[in-house]
Amino acid sequence: MKTKVIFYHAGCSVCVTAEQNVAAALDPARFDVEHVHLGQAKNRVAEAEKAGVKSVPALVLGGTAYHINYGAGIEVLR
Amino acid sequence: MKTKVIFYHAGCSVCVTAEQNVAAALDPARFDVEHVHLGQAKNRVAEAEKAGVKSVPALVLGGTAYHINYGAGIEVLR
Repeated sequence: MKTKVIFYHAGCSVCVTAEQNVAAALDPARFDVEHVHLGQAKNRVAEAEKAGVKSVPALVLGGTAYHINYGAGIEVLR
Repeated sequence: MKTKVIFYHAGCSVCVTAEQNVAAALDPARFDVEHVHLGQAKNRVAEAEKAGVKSVPALVLGGTAYHINYGAGIEVLR
């Protein structure tokens, strides 16, 4: 069974670069990556915050948030 | 031919978590990951800075530095 990973982003340029280079580099044999655009799916912001996401882009993997560079703070996406 | 990725770290707890979860999640079919401990390999700090690394842990992939959370600023490793 694959491990679920969520890539949270907001469509910003830092986000797109991270998505195309880091999220896309994860091993597809071991991980299923869901891409969530928090600017469009505002109903998922609370879930991201609960997982520890403080800024986007971020990956949530194994219950931990990994912020990749800095595109925008999550507070502007609420 | 695989793409070379360098994971720069300093053995800190944030670094170890990122190493075991993000660096280890990259697709081994497409990427060769080199792990560089900048606390031990101080002669590689300049190279990391040239690649845009400002803090560790960080991945350098395709010429771009991706900082993963924040363990330590690179200036303390010089």
